[in-house]
Amino acid sequence: MSDHVYKIVELVGSSRTSIEDAIATAISKAHETIRNMRWFEVVETRGHIEDGKIAHYQVTLKVGFTLESE
Amino acid sequence: MSDHVYKIVELVGSSRTSIEDAIATAISKAHETIRNMRWFEVVETRGHIEDGKIAHYQVTLKVGFTLESE
Amino acid sequence: MSDHVYKIVELVGSSRTSIEDAIATAISKAHETIRNMRWFEVVETRGHIEDGKIAHYQVTLKVGFTLESE
Amino acid sequence: MSDHVYKIVELVGSSRTSIEDAIATAISKAHETIRNMRWFEVVETRGHIEDGKIAHYQVTLKVGFTLESE
Amino acid sequence: MSDHVYKIVELVGSSRTSIEDAIATAISKAHETIRNMRWFEVVETRGHIEDGKIAHYQVTLKVGFTLESE
Amino acid sequence: MSDHVYKIVELVGSSRTSIEDAIATAISKAHETIRNMRWFEVVETRGHIEDGKIAHYQVTLKVGFTLESE
Amino acid sequence: MSDHVYKIVELVGSSRTSIEDAIATAISKAHETIRNMRWFEVVETRGHIEDGKIAHYQVTLKVGFTLESE
Amino acid sequence: MSDHVYKIVELVGSSRTSIEDAIATAISKAHETIRNMRWFEVVETRGHIEDGKIAHYQVTLKVGFTLESE
Amino acid sequence: MSDHVYKIVELVGSSRTSIEDAIATAISKAHETIRNMRWFEVVETRGHIEDGKIAHYQVTLKVGFTLESE
Amino acid sequence: MSDHVYKIVELVGSSRTSIEDAIATAISKAHETIRNMRWFEVVETRGHIEDGKIAHYQVTLKVGFTLESE
Amino acid sequence: MSDHVYKIVELVGSSRTSIEDAIATAISKAHETIRNMRWFEVVETRGHIEDGKIAHYQVTLKVGFTLESE
Amino acid sequence: MSDHVYKIVELVGSSRTSIEDAIATAISKAHETIRNMRWFEVVETRGHIEDGKIAHYQVTLKVGFTLESE
Repeated sequence: MSDHVYKIVELVGSSRTSIEDAIATAISKAHETIRNMRWFEVVETRGHIEDGKIAHYQVTLKVGFTLESE
Repeated sequence: MSDHVYKIVELVGSSRTSIEDAIATAISKAHETIRNMRWFEVVETRGHIEDGKIAHYQVTLKVGFTLESE
Repeated sequence: MSDHVYKIVELVGSSRTSIEDAIATAISKAHETIRNMRWFEVVETRGHIEDGKIAHYQVTLKVGFTLESE
Repeated sequence: MSDHVYKIVELVGSSRTSIEDAIATAISKAHETIRNMRWFEVVETRGHIEDGKIAHYQVTLKVGFTLESE
Repeated sequence: MSDHVYKIVELVGSSRTSIEDAIATAISKAHETIRNMRWFEVVETRGHIEDGKIAHYQVTLKVGFTLESE
Repeated sequence: MSDHVYKIVELVGSSRTSIEDAIATAISKAHETIRNMRWFEVVETRGHIEDGKIAHYQVTLKVGFTLESE
Repeated sequence: MSDHVYKIVELVGSSRTSIEDAIATAISKAHETIRNMRWFEVVETRGHIEDGKIAHYQVTLKVGFTLESE
Repeated sequence: MSDHVYKIVELVGSSRTSIEDAIATAISKAHETIRNMRWFEVVETRGHIEDGKIAHYQVTLKVGFTLESE
Repeated sequence: MSDHVYKIVELVGSSRTSIEDAIATAISKAHETIRNMRWFEVVETRGHIEDGKIAHYQVTLKVGFTLESE
Repeated sequence: MSDHVYKIVELVGSSRTSIEDAIATAISKAHETIRNMRWFEVVETRGHIEDGKIAHYQVTLKVGFTLESE
Repeated sequence: MSDHVYKIVELVGSSRTSIEDAIATAISKAHETIRNMRWFEVVETRGHIEDGKIAHYQVTLKVGFTLESE
Repeated sequence: MSDHVYKIVELVGSSRTSIEDAIATAISKAHETIRNMRWFEVVETRGHIEDGKIAHYQVTLKVGFTLESE
């Protein structure tokens, strides 16, 4: 976190297993098009319920990445 | 809302007639370049005043869309 | 709002036409089982998008009603 | 919004018909004594219920106006 | 999330093992009396400490369910 | 606060004398139908004014109670 | 709270004895110049400390009053 | 901050040079009509952009002043 | 509040009698080890319930004190 | 701010000298790829510390720009 | 949570494996110098990203402990 | 920000000249007793007014530092 300029994008990742996996899923997908991602912050943790069980987690993230090439 | 990854963008739409129309204007414009928009959330409702009347509404939205092709 | 005790419930109403209609739909449904509803407060305004158009609004409300019979 | 100084006042407008009309009612009333109102921001949307129907909307606004004469 | 009316209840679930398990415990208990639960949102994550270790997690949730029979 | 499941309800109590009495009034009324209330949290403190004096306080509470019998 | 227009002002009242008295002090002072005050909402409760004791409470309020004459 | 009653007003000051100067501009303008201003709190820092440069800052303040003469 | 540097600590005080007494209890206890406490701010007001009555209040405070000797 | 549609992006700018310079750095960098930027809002002001001195400021901004060509 | 006085400290714990482990790491470290820790509350969940993967989680906690000896 | 444990303290710094200087004053004073401070975050920007001019700024900060020796 030196003196670069960062851009922040907001993503929602899903997972049937855990909150951590939902975060990883969002970051992994974003990694296909965004280079130089540096940090994330969890904004919201939600999920869907089916038959009294958690069907999947949905975690909203802010992800920061450098605008400069390196 | 199954297990896709979503991206969220923030937009401001305007309308001289109603809050609903300001939302529709923002979504319609974004639809020109963003496919697969799924939901929106109103973040802020503002507007401009001229001669003691509402000149136009300005509604800030978060809009979520799937990153995957379908 | 004299010295009664109130209970507050949280509801989500939907409508294809307007924010006001989504509020009315939630209150009308709740009226089937809750008597003496007195006021509401909009907590969140969201909606779903299909083909670049608003498919329906979803408005989350808090609704207060008196616990006493009258 | 050039380099004037603005003052912000907080108002509550009511309407039996719509959220937009409640906003317009507050601004119209304030226009009797405040000149140069420029913008508003919706702070809270509430309302009263009678017999399972919306009796009226009450919308709390912040309204900004220039302190300078023009 | 079509045009049903939903009610939202607030629950606190506990677990000695994980945040996910505390969520599941609350939903499982509520499932005994509430049918048609659809989604949850994490409101607060707390816990108790004994001897410098996490004794249990306490997760506060909002849970939405349809008011209509299906 | 061991590993039970709790439900949280939101109440508004009134009193002509004090904030503490408004809280007690809400809890006392809820005690008629809810068993096992454990804690409360003040969400909002409001009141009504008549002739430049406080007519009554209105305190909004969240109240937690165990879902299990004991 | 029928269909009048209200204005909201923000005040800070002080008292050496209690939070309720600090609210009453602010409302009583405002009553000298503002007619038709209807309700208040506590925004912030602070205070000053001298020698490990509460010297006085300072309570910030929003107070609503009707703009119409009655 | 002894036991006076204070009123709080909300202002927006602008400056082409700095955040501090935008605050000073709002306070200086308010000083023409409000006596006994005691403190301010920054509520929001915004600004306008022209050609990729900051055109001016707009800082929203709350300003507290004593209602009593001194 | 001249140009000293202050440190802020967060405390929770309890009382069986009132919110004010819970604040005083926290400040009195902190006074044993912290000198030069100047102000407090109420962050949260909670409490415990036994048999449908308030067992005790728990008030969370931020307390500011000067770091300099005087 | 007439009836265009705006998009809002979130950026973090850094500077060793001032908060204003950190804002300018973010806007200047974004100007390389985003045309028609109109306003910004400061979301968060942070910074890094080295040897008891401010090493650099990091200011998070929301920046709005028109989606239409002009 | 009887009638003790509590102090609350804010900590940030890290972990390469999970959110729960980051919480445990912070509490375990604080346990070296703070006795009688009773509860925690998660304030913020962040993390660092390397090569499109979560490098580590950083969880900010508030931790409450009794000021009295026992 | 590798995998250390951090503690966060809250400070208020003052300055007659600028917001930046008020931040630096708080950090410089804290540096006398706290080693290894790493980052700060501005929580609140306030100030005092005398004769329609800013007398001094008061900036509330959160400051994070490593608990480990290095």
